[in-house]
Amino acid sequence: MIPVRFAQRMQEIEPFSVMEVLERARQLEKAGRRIVHMEIGQPDFAAPQIVIDAAIKAMRERTLGYTPALGLMELREAIAGYYLQHHGLNIPPSRIAVTTGSSAALLLALCALVGPGDEVLMPDPCYPCSRHLVRLTEARPIAIPTDETTAYQPTADMVVAAWRPSTRGILLASPSNPAGTIVEPGELQAICELSGHRGGFTIVDEIYSGLLYEGKAASALCRNPDAIVVSGFSKYFCMTGWRLGWLVAPEALIREVEKLAQNLYVSPPAAAQYAALAAFHPESLAVLETRRLEFRERRNFLFDALRSLGFGIPVLPQGAFYLYADCARFAAQSNALAGQMLEQAGVAVAPGKDFGEHQAHRYLRFAYTRSRGELEEGVERLARMPVVRSALDRSGNTS
Amino acid sequence: MIPVRFAQRMQEIEPFSVMEVLERARQLEKAGRRIVHMEIGQPDFAAPQIVIDAAIKAMRERTLGYTPALGLMELREAIAGYYLQHHGLNIPPSRIAVTTGSSAALLLALCALVGPGDEVLMPDPCYPCSRHLVRLTEARPIAIPTDETTAYQPTADMVVAAWRPSTRGILLASPSNPAGTIVEPGELQAICELSGHRGGFTIVDEIYSGLLYEGKAASALCRNPDAIVVSGFSKYFCMTGWRLGWLVAPEALIREVEKLAQNLYVSPPAAAQYAALAAFHPESLAVLETRRLEFRERRNFLFDALRSLGFGIPVLPQGAFYLYADCARFAAQSNALAGQMLEQAGVAVAPGKDFGEHQAHRYLRFAYTRSRGELEEGVERLARMPVVRSALDRSGNTS
Repeated sequence: MIPVRFAQRMQEIEPFSVMEVLERARQLEKAGRRIVHMEIGQPDFAAPQIVIDAAIKAMRERTLGYTPALGLMELREAIAGYYLQHHGLNIPPSRIAVTTGSSAALLLALCALVGPGDEVLMPDPCYPCSRHLVRLTEARPIAIPTDETTAYQPTADMVVAAWRPSTRGILLASPSNPAGTIVEPGELQAICELSGHRGGFTIVDEIYSGLLYEGKAASALCRNPDAIVVSGFSKYFCMTGWRLGWLVAPEALIREVEKLAQNLYVSPPAAAQYAALAAFHPESLAVLETRRLEFRERRNFLFDALRSLGFGIPVLPQGAFYLYADCARFAAQSNALAGQMLEQAGVAVAPGKDFGEHQAHRYLRFAYTRSRGELEEGVERLARMPVVRSALDRSGNTS
Repeated sequence: MIPVRFAQRMQEIEPFSVMEVLERARQLEKAGRRIVHMEIGQPDFAAPQIVIDAAIKAMRERTLGYTPALGLMELREAIAGYYLQHHGLNIPPSRIAVTTGSSAALLLALCALVGPGDEVLMPDPCYPCSRHLVRLTEARPIAIPTDETTAYQPTADMVVAAWRPSTRGILLASPSNPAGTIVEPGELQAICELSGHRGGFTIVDEIYSGLLYEGKAASALCRNPDAIVVSGFSKYFCMTGWRLGWLVAPEALIREVEKLAQNLYVSPPAAAQYAALAAFHPESLAVLETRRLEFRERRNFLFDALRSLGFGIPVLPQGAFYLYADCARFAAQSNALAGQMLEQAGVAVAPGKDFGEHQAHRYLRFAYTRSRGELEEGVERLARMPVVRSALDRSGNTS
């Protein structure tokens, strides 16, 4: 027997290194250590009770077969209603596809839009799946390096400079993972326009748009009706394990997405869709608003605390539940520092290399998806680490 | 604005035409017609009660966040236990990936194995997603035309004849959709071996393997430990809307699949996984066994009844819940006949063109996923159609 070869693309699709952190954290927990988890990108809250009740009702009363490939029409209508109520946008349900998580929304859009020879722009750092999903389609992800001077987001000028004949469009996230920053509205509008004038697309991942702590949430669709928006129920709605997202796109693209969805996964999970119908109920939204305020409170605490320790976070991020912190003061390689933090202090964080290559060795991503008390304990543990204490001593910072 | 172009591949990815049948059937139902549904490839049964109860318990008691990308280890162990108990196979859980439906199992395996320039063999007719998912990876699906002389399955000789330098492997289904036939065990073994000797893979879709009515279920893994098996909870376990499948593969491939799964969908749905743990409970299997016998009874009825009407089904299919019937006696184009059957008789079936090109115009696929009473009514309605009656009159067949 000759061993089976893998596809060429597999050499460029990397595992999330945060998974290794998580795996090691679990080993340490099994050995009796208590770990403070700041590596995990999912809320510590379950779905609102009314959502769970709706799922249980559907399970009791329905056969739960395949739904339409684009999702239940009632749910597409409910999502349209949400855009009307919260963004003042009138989007027909025919422009909305319900998908198996927001990952699938992005995958479907990319599969319909790009292939071999095409290039897709995206910021570095960004959510690692973005470049891997582009690679999966045999298109090439092209990084636009960003740093704190533009809040880790590309500007229209940077996009113009990066655009080439083979560029088919750009992929943004607002608020972003890992930095939690938004694309400045004027820049967003300019990017949508310059991309459109070149026959390109603008995909904006808005999965964190409900978790905004400054100003009012404004979808890219408010800036440009042709923007392609990826969103879902995982983050703000606290339904990560339910695997339900959505895509808003021009109708012609939704028709292509429907063909792909039929083939890729037949339909999104049925019970999750019936449950999600209850996610927009005032009772659910009231619970989620309380949680948003809690996340804001955690952000404020952790932002101040990490800066006091000497981590570099020049701007308070507006949303999501992450802080992207410069740790160059403590270590040359953030990956090694993440390992030390886990082993010495029992604090788990994600190393910058998960999010790209540009200055990745300088950064760590802290998630504030645990309680205030746990975050406080994490910060205290970090403060006791020799590498942090000696840096604090050198700088004369005694906080 | 220049209109956005779609990826080249979208020209070759077709919608299921059965979806148009279903859509038209729903229109007719809204207008007050009663339709007999023989187009739908999903059981008319809900999941066993013990499975539903397990899901409700998980929803009440758990946060339902992301699970590991390859699924809960307990579920991978339970699936391994199922192979041991029902196939006498000792498969370590590390060789099993839980996936978001069996579609995702096939997608993940193909993405890890093939890309531009590669070719994958598959029979024609076959499940249409198979060729579309291959196309999605930028590899080329190559059809091996089959007919009733080999029970719509390829033989080892046919595979040898079709193999080319660019061939990377073969994709089979047993029992198959649309024909419900199995790959003869000796041929299956020979195909696995000849593929392996050429450095190729053999993927076998066994999603219908629990729905076997003749002989004992035997996984391709009994024939060859390197076979890559796609299966899941949708069909035999009556959990279509839960979107849960699995992949059995050599460990090196599972490691690649893990990377892809992290990127493509983070994890399979959580509640469905806790529910599926109960699917292997004796109480669940007893319910499913009763249903299998019911499907067999339906198959026997529909096989005889359609042959009496003059449809050509030369061999009794061993499994799944489909009959692939030659209707050349009634119409030159099965697609047009399917339309007539729906409009005139209110009977919905899937046209052959959904499953390939080889003689597709001669065939219709009948699903026996409705009650015996409904199937009887469907057959009576067909018997009254002028096109069927006149063909019966011509042949002197009076049954």
